[in-house]
Amino acid sequence: MTSFERYDDYIQTRLNDSLDELSRLCAQPSISAQKEGLQQTAQLVAEMLAQRGFATQIFPTAGAPVVFAERSGRNRQKTLLFYNHYDVQPPEPLELWDSPPFEPTLRDGRLYARGVSDDKGHIVSRLFALDALLAVDGELPCNVKFIIEGEEEIGSVNLPAFVREHKDLLAADACIWEFGGVNHQEIPMQYAGLRGICYVELSVQTAAVDAHSGLGGSIFPNAAWRLTWALSTLKDSDERIRIPGFYDNVVPPSERDLAYLEQLPDPAEEYRQHYGVERFVRGLRGGLELKKAEIFEPTCTICGLTAGYQGPGSKTVLPARASAKVDFRLVPNQTPEEVLEKLRTHLDAEGFSDVQITFLGGGPPARTDPQDPFIQLVVNSARQVYGTPMQIVPMSGGSGPNYPFVHDLGLPVATAGLGYPGTQAHAPNENMRVDLYEKHARHMVRVLKTFAT
Amino acid sequence: MTSFERYDDYIQTRLNDSLDELSRLCAQPSISAQKEGLQQTAQLVAEMLAQRGFATQIFPTAGAPVVFAERSGRNRQKTLLFYNHYDVQPPEPLELWDSPPFEPTLRDGRLYARGVSDDKGHIVSRLFALDALLAVDGELPCNVKFIIEGEEEIGSVNLPAFVREHKDLLAADACIWEFGGVNHQEIPMQYAGLRGICYVELSVQTAAVDAHSGLGGSIFPNAAWRLTWALSTLKDSDERIRIPGFYDNVVPPSERDLAYLEQLPDPAEEYRQHYGVERFVRGLRGGLELKKAEIFEPTCTICGLTAGYQGPGSKTVLPARASAKVDFRLVPNQTPEEVLEKLRTHLDAEGFSDVQITFLGGGPPARTDPQDPFIQLVVNSARQVYGTPMQIVPMSGGSGPNYPFVHDLGLPVATAGLGYPGTQAHAPNENMRVDLYEKHARHMVRVLKTFAT
Repeated sequence: MTSFERYDDYIQTRLNDSLDELSRLCAQPSISAQKEGLQQTAQLVAEMLAQRGFATQIFPTAGAPVVFAERSGRNRQKTLLFYNHYDVQPPEPLELWDSPPFEPTLRDGRLYARGVSDDKGHIVSRLFALDALLAVDGELPCNVKFIIEGEEEIGSVNLPAFVREHKDLLAADACIWEFGGVNHQEIPMQYAGLRGICYVELSVQTAAVDAHSGLGGSIFPNAAWRLTWALSTLKDSDERIRIPGFYDNVVPPSERDLAYLEQLPDPAEEYRQHYGVERFVRGLRGGLELKKAEIFEPTCTICGLTAGYQGPGSKTVLPARASAKVDFRLVPNQTPEEVLEKLRTHLDAEGFSDVQITFLGGGPPARTDPQDPFIQLVVNSARQVYGTPMQIVPMSGGSGPNYPFVHDLGLPVATAGLGYPGTQAHAPNENMRVDLYEKHARHMVRVLKTFAT
Repeated sequence: MTSFERYDDYIQTRLNDSLDELSRLCAQPSISAQKEGLQQTAQLVAEMLAQRGFATQIFPTAGAPVVFAERSGRNRQKTLLFYNHYDVQPPEPLELWDSPPFEPTLRDGRLYARGVSDDKGHIVSRLFALDALLAVDGELPCNVKFIIEGEEEIGSVNLPAFVREHKDLLAADACIWEFGGVNHQEIPMQYAGLRGICYVELSVQTAAVDAHSGLGGSIFPNAAWRLTWALSTLKDSDERIRIPGFYDNVVPPSERDLAYLEQLPDPAEEYRQHYGVERFVRGLRGGLELKKAEIFEPTCTICGLTAGYQGPGSKTVLPARASAKVDFRLVPNQTPEEVLEKLRTHLDAEGFSDVQITFLGGGPPARTDPQDPFIQLVVNSARQVYGTPMQIVPMSGGSGPNYPFVHDLGLPVATAGLGYPGTQAHAPNENMRVDLYEKHARHMVRVLKTFAT
């Protein structure tokens, strides 16, 4: 077993310098939804990589630029690719932040800033690991590439095409994903896959202008009613999705998947307390059934509803327009394309040709076999840092653009990171625990050294 | 036949003075929904009445004050009661006004201001009619009372109780309602009744906080889905309201009602053009069936929907809260109380005890027999002014607090007014045609003189 003492010492000694660098990156807003600061942040990230001797390129896309960087290492036969993103969620509502979102602030062992956990902390802690390797060894143990995009928070709309168009540039042997972290028992988690997503807006327009409800209530078509009726055909109150053929391509979890799920702690009580949910759907109470439903079932979620008057009190209006945001989470082997097609066919068949579907983004699910040697390497490298190997979650309930990495580049994709249950990603007071920042850098040192040999 | 020449001359001569007075009243905001300027406007209206020799009182209520005024006239055996309101709709969206809503502006024979048509123009044109009578005769022909409330635009929530508690004060022989006007053929319309209304908010809360849709989509109850499913049980896409017993107390239109409807112009083409509605519900094409549905059927209208994310693009959120504004229009003999009770029973029976009902206001329908002598008097008094008697609509599709006037005070209630199809009540650029303002004053002179004899 390699001794990692000198790398760990470097990381311990230079921690404050690294946090300063992270703070500089977090002070730069990069809000993809609001198109704020994306060029500047791409430039800043590229400079940080260039300072480590990386050859960097900034590729324009139809949206935010993609930063690519590579540096060769001792073992030129092995290449590790890091996928990260430099964009962040909007900071609103600002009044709920205890310190300004773009003024990184250290309090009680935590660094607070928008994007500090998702995903800038991951970028800089990985650079920190490279710094330790370069300081101790004078070189990297293997080739390292970074692809850092700026549209992850708005659905990575341009990334899959970019990956497909740059297969040679991105060629590697394995990939470390952007996120990860410990659960509420301080055990690091390995998410060996992501559900897919198909996010749509359903909208109906029944007239040119709103009408007075006293006039039109009995005779005018009402957009809000059309939308309500259309939505109610998508899913029954028993949670079964009614779109014909929706479940056709679903691959159920394997025996091994279920064995992994069995090993995971029961999340029921944590969910009840954290979200104030009294009961789960379909009488689910917890245990394996809950864990299985959470990950291995596709969903149809209404994320938003909009129509007519929404202010205080009453207004007697008959809305001419209504819309809903609807998100389908997909499991292998469903695809957004098939869902869009089946959704259109279903709405037409149910008499809702007037309901328009606007595709707002998505991608198919993708998984890496948890038994893949690279996954096992990342899992076991965690032991010395966290006191335990990572616990394997066979797939995350969340989604991300991992499909082209798994299926176009053919890479095993492992997750690892500095998150924790209180990290508040996407929410006010997003923060990162400094101890987990340091641990993630130490973990990455071990992954790189082990991977290279 | 009385000669009305001297009164008409007065009205013609003093028109500008009256419009100045109206402009002063319209320059005073009185927005009940925003609780702005209500005390001041009540005071201003009371002063305008006092200047005409009325004994005035301002009654506080739980909401906006009620102005009451009375002055006796030559025939002390006859009393006419005017019902009006001094509050107006919010002026927003301000950017769509061609002149500021509280800076009354005369353009092309129209006076533009928020409330100029609904309802301040009616108040001042009626005072103008009294001025003519006082100037020519030195006295009013009969006793005249005014009740002018400040909450009509927010459902007149305190008015029915006020009327019931002040029956002696409000005692009269007949009532002129706050609104009226000509149709697109310049024929003055007589609405001999109003549908009732029961306006509710339906809301569901399924958790303490929103969840990430990737996490909770398969296992957490979703407030937007609960609301959608609950709403879809209220009305089918064939427009039939499914609440058990909802239609039990509905009194169908009489043969005479249908005969009145037959005489009215077919509104289908006007609706198609003005509202951009391609087709009506249930295959209605126009004619008697459309006119009948518009007025004599109760409704269940979704006036608004709110849940989760409603901004541009996508946000993967599972909403903890969702709500809908729903307005039921009621026909004789339905009541808001029975609808609330049947709605609760229905939602419980359908498994939606988690859907809360908040009553936001309403009142039962009320009608006056179109053959009532007072209605006929108002209808026929119009002939000399408009060149035609009023056309009778047996009931309006709209609603208002006429029930306590009809059923508690026992009054025949007639409508008359200065509205027209382009009056833009409740909308930007609300306006009043000056020629119709003058005509309404002349009509009111004839009504009062005829009524008194």
